[in-house]
Amino acid sequence: MTTDPGLRRLRPMGFTPEIKDALTAGRLGHLATLNPDGSPQVSAVWIGLDGEDIVIGHLMGGVKTRNIARDNRVALTVEASGSNPIGMTNYLIVYGHGRLVEGGAPELLQRLAQGYLGPGAMFPPMSNPPAGHVIHITPERFGGVGPWTS
Amino acid sequence: MTTDPGLRRLRPMGFTPEIKDALTAGRLGHLATLNPDGSPQVSAVWIGLDGEDIVIGHLMGGVKTRNIARDNRVALTVEASGSNPIGMTNYLIVYGHGRLVEGGAPELLQRLAQGYLGPGAMFPPMSNPPAGHVIHITPERFGGVGPWTS
Repeated sequence: MTTDPGLRRLRPMGFTPEIKDALTAGRLGHLATLNPDGSPQVSAVWIGLDGEDIVIGHLMGGVKTRNIARDNRVALTVEASGSNPIGMTNYLIVYGHGRLVEGGAPELLQRLAQGYLGPGAMFPPMSNPPAGHVIHITPERFGGVGPWTS
Repeated sequence: MTTDPGLRRLRPMGFTPEIKDALTAGRLGHLATLNPDGSPQVSAVWIGLDGEDIVIGHLMGGVKTRNIARDNRVALTVEASGSNPIGMTNYLIVYGHGRLVEGGAPELLQRLAQGYLGPGAMFPPMSNPPAGHVIHITPERFGGVGPWTS
């Protein structure tokens, strides 16, 4: 059910409307990074868009941010609505490189909380949260199951 | 929102009832493997249980199976029901090693299709499907958000 990444169609930069929909539907992103020993690390994250980047906010330093600072190759999956003709649920794979930007995490998380938690939600639920980091992922290739691979 | 894997509680072998529920709820698994150049590869897969292993069926050779044959370190995430006190959706992370077993993919997929596609579903939708491979993942560590990390 997975074709060779090398054979997947390379897309020009920029999100198609379908990709943009998948990335802004309020679904969790599953972000894979590389641990110091080269093993895969994955975690589920809130995702947003900033121009042509996918953005992820982190209040505290964590495994993901340390991993990206050391080796910035990442992959991210997000489930999407619909399915293909044989019933496989649509999902988007994004391959790219991450870039850490200091600060801005509370503002991004507050914006994303409106979609992930609901309108009017306050997140992070604390006063004076740390500025944290924003991970920017510039997509280089898309895959998965859905209109982005047809 | 991710703690250091090294600090996560190590669990003895065996699934807790909550982990078993998360793995059999009919949600997609997001499986991360390692490409030949060491970069992360991810894809969404149907998951099942076979004793203390998580099992994934593949009819055809693909990136995942070639990756696991070369470097068997894997990580898998699956979204779960419920959320933590600050609203983060529960999800399970499984870290472990994969093992390829030849054959058995059609039978496994037919079994899993009952949960993923619905009772009575036929999958793969073809006569005489190839025997394929079954990926067995023996969990070594769990993480994420949910009762498995408390």
